[in-house]
Amino acid sequence: MSDLPSRVEFREEGVREGFQIEARAYPLADRVRLVEALAETGLHHIQVASFVSPKAVPNMADSDQFFPAIRKKPGVLYSALWLNERGYLRARDTAGVDLMPRLVYYASDPFCHRNNGCSAVELAERQAGWMRMYVADRLRVETATVLAAFGCNFEGDILPERSVKAGLAADALCRAQGYTLPKIVLADTMGWANPASLKRLVGMVREALPDTTIVLHLHDTRGLGGANVLAGLQMGVTLFDSSVAGLGGCPFSNPGDTTAAGNICTEDMVFMCQEMGIETGVNLDALLECAHLAETIIGRRLNGHLLRTGGLASFRAAWAAAQHA
Amino acid sequence: MSDLPSRVEFREEGVREGFQIEARAYPLADRVRLVEALAETGLHHIQVASFVSPKAVPNMADSDQFFPAIRKKPGVLYSALWLNERGYLRARDTAGVDLMPRLVYYASDPFCHRNNGCSAVELAERQAGWMRMYVADRLRVETATVLAAFGCNFEGDILPERSVKAGLAADALCRAQGYTLPKIVLADTMGWANPASLKRLVGMVREALPDTTIVLHLHDTRGLGGANVLAGLQMGVTLFDSSVAGLGGCPFSNPGDTTAAGNICTEDMVFMCQEMGIETGVNLDALLECAHLAETIIGRRLNGHLLRTGGLASFRAAWAAAQHA
Repeated sequence: MSDLPSRVEFREEGVREGFQIEARAYPLADRVRLVEALAETGLHHIQVASFVSPKAVPNMADSDQFFPAIRKKPGVLYSALWLNERGYLRARDTAGVDLMPRLVYYASDPFCHRNNGCSAVELAERQAGWMRMYVADRLRVETATVLAAFGCNFEGDILPERSVKAGLAADALCRAQGYTLPKIVLADTMGWANPASLKRLVGMVREALPDTTIVLHLHDTRGLGGANVLAGLQMGVTLFDSSVAGLGGCPFSNPGDTTAAGNICTEDMVFMCQEMGIETGVNLDALLECAHLAETIIGRRLNGHLLRTGGLASFRAAWAAAQHA
Repeated sequence: MSDLPSRVEFREEGVREGFQIEARAYPLADRVRLVEALAETGLHHIQVASFVSPKAVPNMADSDQFFPAIRKKPGVLYSALWLNERGYLRARDTAGVDLMPRLVYYASDPFCHRNNGCSAVELAERQAGWMRMYVADRLRVETATVLAAFGCNFEGDILPERSVKAGLAADALCRAQGYTLPKIVLADTMGWANPASLKRLVGMVREALPDTTIVLHLHDTRGLGGANVLAGLQMGVTLFDSSVAGLGGCPFSNPGDTTAAGNICTEDMVFMCQEMGIETGVNLDALLECAHLAETIIGRRLNGHLLRTGGLASFRAAWAAAQHA
């Protein structure tokens, strides 16, 4: 496996992904504490919250107070999610948000209708307006996100060509401004990806957009998260979205059941990479403490595996010590 | 991923692995019902129970009554586990056991002391006696199992050379009887394998024993089960031990905590294979019903993912129906 990348980065999304799907509200202070602890682990990018309709996602209603309350660590990005212009304007006007301007595309039309209230084609056309908005604020687009890139509970399997088309459209908008689309996020929003379909899609997107960095946003909905990460690594992907303690999940995938597996679990995947000799820059012990903190805050058993068993370092240390005794 | 096998087989171990670690006792009738349901799914090999010390594993004390109570389905193997000569004799003398004579090796010496009460070298030497016992019963060895092949909580990382050595020793015993060792089971008993170490070990064992079929017995202890299966598939492995609903786990790995992830989950892995176009011969819906039955019998939430979310067939069918409506 000498073809694996030597270094990968996990972008932490647990705070945003995790709390947005919960029914009860959580004190701001707890969420601030979790974000601040995560920033001490070596993670460089923490998605803190979304600026979306407080009616649709009540747990994100206080995003404007959330960001300013965080004691920032230099070198760490504290980003926000938005799905329309209004959300962007709220994020922009909130102190402490590291703005990562994004374009948003849906690979599934019925899912776009449900999640964004318009057709996928309509939303794609609107991205020219989003671009104008970013240009007016003198910002460059950082990412195009393609939601439901692998499959959709409301449309079945999704052809990889749709993600390629979305990526090319986003890249064209960037090129008109004189630069290449920096990143494309292929999101397996509802847990449809498998290692074979993932390799196919990553290969096609890379061929179409050779200068754009591919990011994988994967869910462990059906137990294929780790295998999909491995497939991504084998395709040379070095950027993954993940959630501490395996928090999160798409409310559309398992309506009413927030206990099903969510996003791929940061500490489990950091562990896998480290065991294979891939650098992550993350302190696994510190991250595991964050996972336990997340579990304490949420108040029920979460899905991460290392939460239950820990890593292997303590066993190795005990054996080494016994050898020298 | 055209290099993946076109067909793989999962050997079901959930009934033996799952109940052996539980503290409370379960009615024989429930376990019989589960075995009989599993036999209807297309699985061809079900490990039903072990013949080990009833003091060490109280839940396996009734193995002699368990096998005769099962209504057998033709074409399905109902196998047993034993770790010493006495266990084999009990299995041999129990009606309904499909005897799969095995040789047993430990890659870790301290683990052998704990689990088998002797050194790994001593147990390896005893295998000549086991062979004589099988020869006296006119049976051929079917498998050599190497326990803790990847790492051990009591000895840290384990060099792949130890598994190779064990395999060669078992093969030598078989060759003295005029045949090649048919199968070698590489068991990641305590969840130490990662995709890189797995590929290394499988490669080395295959080079040393080119005519022996490699079987992987994997645990999902630290969330790497699916990735390890993928790595095995990429190495051409076509036989995996697994447990319905993700039952099982090694009591030494997480003492007192039977809720941590156990063996790789049969239905999740069958799903992964099917999604990648690999035949398993298993009816996923029927298997999912068995997983729910296992959860009902055990009486708490089990670790399988599809248990919570189901597969993708119903979503695909709904979309196809909507298209034709």
